[in-house]
Amino acid sequence: MASIRKGTEKDIPALMGLIHELAEFEKAPEEVETTEACLLEDWKEHRAFDFLVAELDGEVVGISLYYPRYSTWKGRCFYLEDLVVRPHLRGKGIGLALLKATADEARKAGAIRLDWQVLDWNEGAVRFYEKIGAHIEKEWWNCKWRID
Amino acid sequence: MASIRKGTEKDIPALMGLIHELAEFEKAPEEVETTEACLLEDWKEHRAFDFLVAELDGEVVGISLYYPRYSTWKGRCFYLEDLVVRPHLRGKGIGLALLKATADEARKAGAIRLDWQVLDWNEGAVRFYEKIGAHIEKEWWNCKWRID
Repeated sequence: MASIRKGTEKDIPALMGLIHELAEFEKAPEEVETTEACLLEDWKEHRAFDFLVAELDGEVVGISLYYPRYSTWKGRCFYLEDLVVRPHLRGKGIGLALLKATADEARKAGAIRLDWQVLDWNEGAVRFYEKIGAHIEKEWWNCKWRID
Repeated sequence: MASIRKGTEKDIPALMGLIHELAEFEKAPEEVETTEACLLEDWKEHRAFDFLVAELDGEVVGISLYYPRYSTWKGRCFYLEDLVVRPHLRGKGIGLALLKATADEARKAGAIRLDWQVLDWNEGAVRFYEKIGAHIEKEWWNCKWRID
């Protein structure tokens, strides 16, 4: 079974690799503009996120990347931006272990809820999230406004 | 015209009032579990969010509440959690002024994008956001997992 631990500087290349794998799966590989240097600076200097890694036989095979968010209705929450497990190792409980470990980090920081998003066509993921008791809302659309 | 400024401790009661007004509009008034004390602590002690207020004749008539978020594809962004203008003052440019001022805060902090969400039935808001050039994504569902 994979072991879960906090990510460190030396995990940044593996993190970048898994971000690219997820973008391929989400049919948007050309959308990734970040680089390893950018991830490192945003994590180390700006503390913009934190991450966990799942390790198996000395290799990073999964990651969860998260940061605090705020609900004006419920209070302090955590947002899970990315949860990725290498394709050939899916269905073995690594994703659930990462999710639970992320919830532990959130709880330790005083958050009462963990939020994330799922693509409407990703049926396997939707079933998995419903099974563990997550509440799924289908009536919100994302708005993104470039300001650079 | 309303003036826009950073929120302060004395604006917390008005902030709570506008959060309740928005929850009524979104047909979920019973969902608000936060209190003024909770907002104050989360803002002042935990720095979980920051907020701007629109003031008209000495009265707070609108707010924007935001915090940093992270996109593994684009880098550092800001998330606009709530944008509220008192109903009798809508359509006068106060929302746009708050949105632009929030983008300014985001830009100052090094963010390259401002993100938020809109309810799919809120046609007026959707038209407004499209008009100002925001990109709207309709294929993501929100997942929320209570961990308390």
